[in-house]
Amino acid sequence: MVDAALQRYLPKPTVKPHTIHKAMRYSVFAGGKRLRPILCLAAAESCGGEAVAALPLACAVECIHTYSLIHDDLPCMDDDDLRRGMPTSHKVFGEGIAVLTGDALLTFAFELAAEALGSPRYPLKMIVQELAVAAGSRKLIAGQVVDLESEGKRVPLPLLKFIHESKTAALLRAAIRLGAMSANATPARLESLSLFGTALGLAFQVIDDILDVTQSSETLGKSAGKDVTAEKATYPSVVGLEESRKAAKKLTEEAHRSLKAFGRKADILHGIADYLLKREY
Amino acid sequence: MVDAALQRYLPKPTVKPHTIHKAMRYSVFAGGKRLRPILCLAAAESCGGEAVAALPLACAVECIHTYSLIHDDLPCMDDDDLRRGMPTSHKVFGEGIAVLTGDALLTFAFELAAEALGSPRYPLKMIVQELAVAAGSRKLIAGQVVDLESEGKRVPLPLLKFIHESKTAALLRAAIRLGAMSANATPARLESLSLFGTALGLAFQVIDDILDVTQSSETLGKSAGKDVTAEKATYPSVVGLEESRKAAKKLTEEAHRSLKAFGRKADILHGIADYLLKREY
Repeated sequence: MVDAALQRYLPKPTVKPHTIHKAMRYSVFAGGKRLRPILCLAAAESCGGEAVAALPLACAVECIHTYSLIHDDLPCMDDDDLRRGMPTSHKVFGEGIAVLTGDALLTFAFELAAEALGSPRYPLKMIVQELAVAAGSRKLIAGQVVDLESEGKRVPLPLLKFIHESKTAALLRAAIRLGAMSANATPARLESLSLFGTALGLAFQVIDDILDVTQSSETLGKSAGKDVTAEKATYPSVVGLEESRKAAKKLTEEAHRSLKAFGRKADILHGIADYLLKREY
Repeated sequence: MVDAALQRYLPKPTVKPHTIHKAMRYSVFAGGKRLRPILCLAAAESCGGEAVAALPLACAVECIHTYSLIHDDLPCMDDDDLRRGMPTSHKVFGEGIAVLTGDALLTFAFELAAEALGSPRYPLKMIVQELAVAAGSRKLIAGQVVDLESEGKRVPLPLLKFIHESKTAALLRAAIRLGAMSANATPARLESLSLFGTALGLAFQVIDDILDVTQSSETLGKSAGKDVTAEKATYPSVVGLEESRKAAKKLTEEAHRSLKAFGRKADILHGIADYLLKREY
């Protein structure tokens, strides 16, 4: 459903200039798990809404996620050649076009988000700002900045938690909240889903850090051991592998607990949380 | 008025992470002319609206303009060390932070745009999409892409016009249209202002091209002769200096003519058009 919508929404590769529209599609259709958009749709349904009403928002979040990966992989950032088993954008299209492709996907995300109808409790203004704040200089970009500035330095656990909250949890939580907002969720439901999003997002990043240490590049589809080489602050490097596994488990349990009030309506969200914790590590 | 609003709107430099918020302010307050936001406010007033209602949109456009300059100046793009007489963002903060600062300003522009109230004829959806389309892969970014791809190549006049329309005129026109939209302009007035914006934007870029050839770096506040060195397609290089001057004059006249129906209400817009044509060249 998400893939079909992205196919429909994104400018066709035949639109001029061809390069940029090909490059946008190259990265968007490079085999991502669609975790964030699926969470967005599942959150909408868990609040009694229609997935289809959340679809522009789900795709907007995926475009923002994709742009952040493209810029993150640039030589002046993490300098990564491989992403999801494929050459990164700047490897295929060159650095200049990769910068512009990220810019284009970020801009397009807001064109898409404005397609959302909003709901009685959550007008379009709140929806656009939810997305802009989560993707902005105090969240997603803040995480990238601190990540970049911490390379080669000893990072205390609170700062590492700030990086994980900003770089990963904020956008994941926004995806979930936006789905709930499109379904006109009650404030209490929205709050529960926010807690779910935070716990799940943090668990997700801890597990990602663990996988970087324990898995091969082939399994990951990106360069393994990269964090260690770049002297990146990661959960295993700060608290060790065993503590990291415990933290991931605890956070996932917290995620499950926060959905208690939803009963069976949150089955899919529970399932996604389990799926994430059970990734090979 | 625009400067005070930008001071108020932009996250304070004391907000963490300091680097990104300092870098955002460094480029936004680097001495830009505020041409686009002033046009936005003047357009609102020419349609009988209050400038203050257009202020978030005026500042949003300026943030987008600033982001596009930061990314445009990167080593992988135009590789420029100087902008408005000051070192460019990547020279001061490094390439990684400069990429993220551009990203942050682009994202912030939509947070700001969502502050606009819209008007009966132009709801927030139209306003956000007007901005996103003008800044997106078919306009602003398209211009950058073709500009980048044309370096060192012979560029036919129609392609040069496409670059100017996309890279410069589209965002300038959007600034004007957004002002008019915030003032609930009649469709006829909006159309006249669109024509004004296109003509003015094209005139502006032709004059910029001329200045690059005829002025010193000191006067320009950026590296002069850069277009020639980089084998950029410019008006003077395609049609010669004399024809370029004629084109600038003709476009400016066209801009004036398109405001006929506004009478005295367009005095400020006429004044801006004259000011632009009379820049030293």
